[in-house]
Amino acid sequence: MDDRIERQLAFSLEIDKEKNIFRQTHLSAHGRKENDAEHAWHMAIMAYLLKEYANEPIDISRVMLMCLIHDIVEIDAGDTYAYDEEMLASQKEREDAAKERIFSLLPADQKAELTACFDEFEANDTPEARFAHAMDNFQPLLLNHSNGGSDWREHGVSAAQVYRRQEKTLAGSARLYEITDMILKENVAKGNLKAPEQS
Amino acid sequence: MDDRIERQLAFSLEIDKEKNIFRQTHLSAHGRKENDAEHAWHMAIMAYLLKEYANEPIDISRVMLMCLIHDIVEIDAGDTYAYDEEMLASQKEREDAAKERIFSLLPADQKAELTACFDEFEANDTPEARFAHAMDNFQPLLLNHSNGGSDWREHGVSAAQVYRRQEKTLAGSARLYEITDMILKENVAKGNLKAPEQS
Repeated sequence: MDDRIERQLAFSLEIDKEKNIFRQTHLSAHGRKENDAEHAWHMAIMAYLLKEYANEPIDISRVMLMCLIHDIVEIDAGDTYAYDEEMLASQKEREDAAKERIFSLLPADQKAELTACFDEFEANDTPEARFAHAMDNFQPLLLNHSNGGSDWREHGVSAAQVYRRQEKTLAGSARLYEITDMILKENVAKGNLKAPEQS
Repeated sequence: MDDRIERQLAFSLEIDKEKNIFRQTHLSAHGRKENDAEHAWHMAIMAYLLKEYANEPIDISRVMLMCLIHDIVEIDAGDTYAYDEEMLASQKEREDAAKERIFSLLPADQKAELTACFDEFEANDTPEARFAHAMDNFQPLLLNHSNGGSDWREHGVSAAQVYRRQEKTLAGSARLYEITDMILKENVAKGNLKAPEQS
């Protein structure tokens, strides 16, 4: 086996570990916690189905690739819950080290290519990254809403915290932000999210 | 919410169930069984990374979409193990009914589009479908090989059975077939696969 394909296969096997990184979101029908690979798969399909709601013209293939790989660094760095302030403080350092180790398994050209795609997502400065971020918010929101907001209740999350995060959804898709807003209002009314004045 | 987006979100939520459809393949490091969503995610990334080995020019975005959705029908029809002859006999009927129910959740244009993509995979008659099928074989083979061939041993699978299935890998990628052949020979030598004369 030549070095190039050996590296490609080593990386392919390494990313299998992403299936063991569990998130705080639960699957629909009050299922178990979701893992990163499932989340990425779901986001990529939703991006394709909902692409007509992107605020700007997007290269949907790039969005999908971004969705598929955006959490690979969590193999080493672990999942950082969106509302865990302590873990958020060290997130960048942990993820940078992981990015270097994991993408270095690939041949140099593919390391550069995937790192660029990952960095583009992180920088959130292109139409593709903005739409991928909208998916990163909207996919777990859809699951959590389907479960009666139990993930929010469990963590005592406030509406203010969730709304702050939804600015990224708005930047990617005004239409999906409207749906998000409708869902959040319903969950505030039902007491699943602490109302703004309580937070 | 208008009917179009309501349908898109209903479908998006429905496919969450694919995360509960478990396959016979185990995750690397002798992990638990893999589910369909994880398998599809892994295939899509591997397709992107290994696209240079496709026998024919391919539209990689179409291959990736095909990989992502190719097992959605198993939400209703269940996973059919590649070497379970009895289940294989009823597979098409079960999957056709599932396809109709699940894709009908979508708006008509997207139902037609995703059904066409699914059918293209099934027909295996385009360069994109052939490469996606190569991934459908190669991804679990890589995992199983990393586990010392334990999935084959557990099911008493013969080399002849596995080789028959690899014709699809050869049609999609001669190079990945070479790697497959190397891996299979090693597993026959180690007794993980029943040798041709025993089958």
